[in-house]
Amino acid sequence: MIDKSKIDEIVSSYKKPAIATICSHSSLQIFHGARQEGIKSIGICLKGKERMYDAFPLAKPDEFIFVNSYSDLPASELVARNAIIVPHGSFVEYMGEKLDDFPVPVLGNRHSLMWERSREKMFDWIYKAGLRTPKVFLDPRQIDRPVIVKFPGAKGGAGYIVVNSYEEYREKVGERKAMVQEFMTGVRAYPHYFYTPLGKKGYPASNGSLELLGVDRRIESNADEIGRALHSGAHVPMGFTVVANEPMVLRESLLPEYLDIGKRVAEAADKLFGGIPGPFCVETIISDKMEVFTFEISARIVAGTNIFGNGSPYSVYTDGNPLSMGRRIAMEINRAAKAKKLDEIVY
Amino acid sequence: MIDKSKIDEIVSSYKKPAIATICSHSSLQIFHGARQEGIKSIGICLKGKERMYDAFPLAKPDEFIFVNSYSDLPASELVARNAIIVPHGSFVEYMGEKLDDFPVPVLGNRHSLMWERSREKMFDWIYKAGLRTPKVFLDPRQIDRPVIVKFPGAKGGAGYIVVNSYEEYREKVGERKAMVQEFMTGVRAYPHYFYTPLGKKGYPASNGSLELLGVDRRIESNADEIGRALHSGAHVPMGFTVVANEPMVLRESLLPEYLDIGKRVAEAADKLFGGIPGPFCVETIISDKMEVFTFEISARIVAGTNIFGNGSPYSVYTDGNPLSMGRRIAMEINRAAKAKKLDEIVY
Amino acid sequence: MIDKSKIDEIVSSYKKPAIATICSHSSLQIFHGARQEGIKSIGICLKGKERMYDAFPLAKPDEFIFVNSYSDLPASELVARNAIIVPHGSFVEYMGEKLDDFPVPVLGNRHSLMWERSREKMFDWIYKAGLRTPKVFLDPRQIDRPVIVKFPGAKGGAGYIVVNSYEEYREKVGERKAMVQEFMTGVRAYPHYFYTPLGKKGYPASNGSLELLGVDRRIESNADEIGRALHSGAHVPMGFTVVANEPMVLRESLLPEYLDIGKRVAEAADKLFGGIPGPFCVETIISDKMEVFTFEISARIVAGTNIFGNGSPYSVYTDGNPLSMGRRIAMEINRAAKAKKLDEIVY
Repeated sequence: MIDKSKIDEIVSSYKKPAIATICSHSSLQIFHGARQEGIKSIGICLKGKERMYDAFPLAKPDEFIFVNSYSDLPASELVARNAIIVPHGSFVEYMGEKLDDFPVPVLGNRHSLMWERSREKMFDWIYKAGLRTPKVFLDPRQIDRPVIVKFPGAKGGAGYIVVNSYEEYREKVGERKAMVQEFMTGVRAYPHYFYTPLGKKGYPASNGSLELLGVDRRIESNADEIGRALHSGAHVPMGFTVVANEPMVLRESLLPEYLDIGKRVAEAADKLFGGIPGPFCVETIISDKMEVFTFEISARIVAGTNIFGNGSPYSVYTDGNPLSMGRRIAMEINRAAKAKKLDEIVY
Repeated sequence: MIDKSKIDEIVSSYKKPAIATICSHSSLQIFHGARQEGIKSIGICLKGKERMYDAFPLAKPDEFIFVNSYSDLPASELVARNAIIVPHGSFVEYMGEKLDDFPVPVLGNRHSLMWERSREKMFDWIYKAGLRTPKVFLDPRQIDRPVIVKFPGAKGGAGYIVVNSYEEYREKVGERKAMVQEFMTGVRAYPHYFYTPLGKKGYPASNGSLELLGVDRRIESNADEIGRALHSGAHVPMGFTVVANEPMVLRESLLPEYLDIGKRVAEAADKLFGGIPGPFCVETIISDKMEVFTFEISARIVAGTNIFGNGSPYSVYTDGNPLSMGRRIAMEINRAAKAKKLDEIVY
Repeated sequence: MIDKSKIDEIVSSYKKPAIATICSHSSLQIFHGARQEGIKSIGICLKGKERMYDAFPLAKPDEFIFVNSYSDLPASELVARNAIIVPHGSFVEYMGEKLDDFPVPVLGNRHSLMWERSREKMFDWIYKAGLRTPKVFLDPRQIDRPVIVKFPGAKGGAGYIVVNSYEEYREKVGERKAMVQEFMTGVRAYPHYFYTPLGKKGYPASNGSLELLGVDRRIESNADEIGRALHSGAHVPMGFTVVANEPMVLRESLLPEYLDIGKRVAEAADKLFGGIPGPFCVETIISDKMEVFTFEISARIVAGTNIFGNGSPYSVYTDGNPLSMGRRIAMEINRAAKAKKLDEIVY
């Protein structure tokens, strides 16, 4: 992995940082937030894909860099433009392991994205944070209940399947490498955290503070309308492809636990790989006994924040202005630049 | 159908256009938007129904015209008050074929409402636009999977039924005229488009431009809680009556396709019947393979926009102010009036 | 129950009223609304629970009163601080019958909370209001369809079960005291009303007027994802624990009926126990025939209002500013204080 000192050297040379990201996932919100805070935005874009922004003029990046492939980004051009990359789900997916040596400053800590990428490491992180989880079946022969099988690189939930027994597992999964997790029934909730090492004004966590800017529920095709199929008599497999998001608020008595979950994840990140500045999400499911189970961590902005481009029911208590996660990111870059602490929030 | 030149003559005589609609469907938003843009609003109202607006003072129309029946509207009085009708689902339903000769300017193109009214024409339109659709069964004897049966005039989804075979079709539908469509499982999404022929500032489409102001999901009784019935052991038929709407955002990587769908629908409308200025919706379902299927078109404002009376997660990128579809309509009328181009947005 | 004249005496001694509530349920919104309207807020808090507010600085109460138990509140200290209690679901649950004699002014009418607490009284209230309800089975031997069994004090839906027959009832419920209600399938909708006796500017009801500030849908674990369990083959009981809320808007043609329901509930409250000033909710389910059935009343602010801390799709028509229920409450206290009519809105 590229040396942190190398990234620090690059970012210390920046006159005025710009915000760059790949034109997908949560880019509208990221560019819009940059504009709201007066930061130049750069869209890394496949030719032709820039047309989408014509429909959303306030979220159109100030500049485009056109590429032939999202896995081959022009590092020197980005550095020349003083770019800090805001990594999102599509960025992480397209870059894969190339991210490790990518010589451009990335908001947050690229270690955390590596930990997100590996299911084994992610579970180490979750366990280190001391969070309750659905049961993981390391040996598929021990499957004794419905389990969800997740394949590596299956992004956005596409390709996940549910099986009920080892026999079904052998038939449908075979020898493929996969993670096998208890299939829990409850209500899924996706809290949007922001951790800042720059101040201690919010909820105390690690050496800085934590914010909870919103909560969404992912809408998965076809799992979220599977009751219709069951009633109709259609025999269709259940799919978990995330196609949309909807807003929700948690029962207020759950908020202390959710703040504690965010704090534990941030503090475990500190110990495991040096911290997680910036946005992250902890994927959870709430049982009918109000127990919260964590089944994944996303170590960067999640697409569920897109529903709150004009602020969320929680961000209204954080700041008087409409505050999206995209804007919070831009605020953080401005604050760090002003305090000459950009090195504390990038790698 | 009344001559376009007759409508143009009427609208050209207007000193200052007013916005009128029937007091139902999305009227709160339409009247509120008119007020925001300084346009007089007129509620066409059954006696007694005006009391609802006492609860929503900013959405109360400036004037009421009381009628005994929504299918018998006072055209000359409306014209005397310089009214442009904003057609919505209830207006279309109540007016039926009377709309064709109704001598009052209607926002948009009344041809499009005629095309919406006929399922055959609507499918011609969808096919002309080159959109992916669920399979349509012209001959019910070919039913080989769960299908949804839609009767003419069944508005808001009421009365739709699901059958699994020709036998069940014969028993439950008999000789009634109906449209038979594959019953797909996925996630439904209802994008709210606005097409303007007045400028080219948004997403290019036809001779003007397209905006995407929001996306909702319709909540259907009892289909959206049918899983509860199945689990409880209750044997109840599945119903599709739209009773409410909830907000959602699409996965950002789906937006280019949704913009393209809107563009194709607008351009097919151009060719088929002279265009579709103003708001419209394309009813879609997204499969777990992220394929988008179109099953209907609404050629006017849809009730799902009601959730965004204070702006949507998308409209925040379009305009700095809270922008509802009702307000967008009022802005369009103001712009057209100023440019003496009202004839380009009414018929 | 403590004499109304005693409460009136206390509140008439207040120099400047403050807003107090227990730190749970909808407290963020209540404290935020108080701040927006310039009223001092007091959080009644278990030691350690105050940390949550660090994450939501604009919703942090101005002062805390720390207690060892929420069922043992320091009345004299609250009175000394000129506190008016805003009762919410957790307050009602924790206080139980102690509320009757609690010598501190409570927003609204504490009679109504007593009527909410008893299922028998609540149904008297619903019947008195002339509302359509699911069938109630007074004798469990008459169970002839799926029914939901609700135990006394089972708050937030926890512990509710569905049974299909008297045999199942005997096995799972036994001799426990419970309310047995037809298990209806439809779409649940929770309208947020505010009744004010101070003016006649809104929707006329009783001697004052009614507002409809929003509508939510409760998200229940695991009932709202039970279709996934059914498809997966998991055999899990269906639970109804409310863990979250999501926003919705009603079909506009249902609004007159919902306003009428609110009006009837307010007017029945007048006759039964002297009225219900302030916020309340009527829990409903809408059938596929668009019939509205009422199954509960909450005689105070409900947690579903938490989704609208920055205003709702309905409140935008009521007031130009973002209007939450918490802010509406604070506005009411300010108005009443100014008009020296606090005695009309507390008991």
